[in-house]
Amino acid sequence: MGALHQGHISLIKKSMEECQYNVVSIFVNPAQFGPGEDYEKYPRSIEADIKILQKENIDILFVPTTEEMYQKNFGTWINVEKISEVFEGKLRPGHFCGVCTIVGKFFNIIQPDKSYFGWKDAQQLIIIKKMVKELNIPVKIIGMTTIRDKDGLALSSRNTYLSPEGRKKATCLYKSLHKMWEMVIYNSITDTEILLEEGKKIILKESVKIDYLEVINLSNFKPVKKIEKQTGIIGAVRIDNVRLIDNIIWE
Amino acid sequence: MGALHQGHISLIKKSMEECQYNVVSIFVNPAQFGPGEDYEKYPRSIEADIKILQKENIDILFVPTTEEMYQKNFGTWINVEKISEVFEGKLRPGHFCGVCTIVGKFFNIIQPDKSYFGWKDAQQLIIIKKMVKELNIPVKIIGMTTIRDKDGLALSSRNTYLSPEGRKKATCLYKSLHKMWEMVIYNSITDTEILLEEGKKIILKESVKIDYLEVINLSNFKPVKKIEKQTGIIGAVRIDNVRLIDNIIWE
Repeated sequence: MGALHQGHISLIKKSMEECQYNVVSIFVNPAQFGPGEDYEKYPRSIEADIKILQKENIDILFVPTTEEMYQKNFGTWINVEKISEVFEGKLRPGHFCGVCTIVGKFFNIIQPDKSYFGWKDAQQLIIIKKMVKELNIPVKIIGMTTIRDKDGLALSSRNTYLSPEGRKKATCLYKSLHKMWEMVIYNSITDTEILLEEGKKIILKESVKIDYLEVINLSNFKPVKKIEKQTGIIGAVRIDNVRLIDNIIWE
Repeated sequence: MGALHQGHISLIKKSMEECQYNVVSIFVNPAQFGPGEDYEKYPRSIEADIKILQKENIDILFVPTTEEMYQKNFGTWINVEKISEVFEGKLRPGHFCGVCTIVGKFFNIIQPDKSYFGWKDAQQLIIIKKMVKELNIPVKIIGMTTIRDKDGLALSSRNTYLSPEGRKKATCLYKSLHKMWEMVIYNSITDTEILLEEGKKIILKESVKIDYLEVINLSNFKPVKKIEKQTGIIGAVRIDNVRLIDNIIWE
């Protein structure tokens, strides 16, 4: 969706390393925003983005108009059941249907061999992998590590919405996840209840609203009782009415 | 779905004429049958089909298993709104979602330049054209004229379900459509109400149940008051509890 930051650039650099031709798409997709969400005010900085992409030396920048992507009477949708209806999907109904449809369209237009997504949006990444597998789309999906500010905050175009005060508070989500990670790694605590109790404390200490904080099975995003392979801790908080998400994954 | 007849063979011959490599898929798709429909008893004749395809000299026959197409926990669906919910879609809820999903999967697997569908299933053809356009699938959809028995009955694998008595009655749908076509062509009658009144009489004379008989706009399948370019007359009847569909199209 543009407003490029180091997270996007890490995807681009990996693609440049692995692929012969490199295409970047920038499209603020109305179909993945709900009523009352931030579609209108979502940060757009196409000129700065173009400078960055020129520096990275990509081959093609694809910037379609809304009308090109959604013609009059548009009505064909790709939906991944169940996993699209929990967490982000529960709080943002229709969001993942909008994501899957535009990503499916871009795959048909661009026909990439590989496509790069950030692990920051873990649920999106897993849903896209499921869509690609189940619709037999001939593309390899590559998930790339979340890029963070020095204090740990996951990079996101939406971070620019935060007040200076909110920006300081915002690290609590990372701190919470990091604390739970330490408890797993150094203290071998794998019990969900114990981990989440500790994790929630760290966020609530900052008086930040938790949308969710949960240990889930990565393949279906169902809550699990223990950290294992293929589980993750996912979290979403609200600061200054800005939603921030982050996660740690045990792949 | 196999049980090949001259309608399918006309698609294959056209493809052989126009294309360098020719692929035929045969798959009785469970996702497009509703509960209580004829999935189990749908005619299957893969050995006879193979003989026909060998004679036609096609390059590849693609016959996946149900498990290959729908793996455990399958849940990704392509849906074309609105036009999937009327006529066949209203009588068979979920039918076109099953059709679009399997056709989308086959397009991704086979990656054809052109794909051939019969006009007999007019609503299916229009929905697939809309899906291809709106999802930017790089394939050209070609609609081929309905092939008929000598008495006019549109060929369909489901015709084998008919009793000898039912088979005789079954021509009433074609006779009705043909009569309306004559009224348009020879008498310049384009008024829907007049045409349908005459058309329904011909079917009801045989005591055959009409599921629907309607003049529709081909792009959205909404009923229209006059025959024009891009309209069609579509009909569905029930004989011996077998559903038969047919249509005439003004392209």
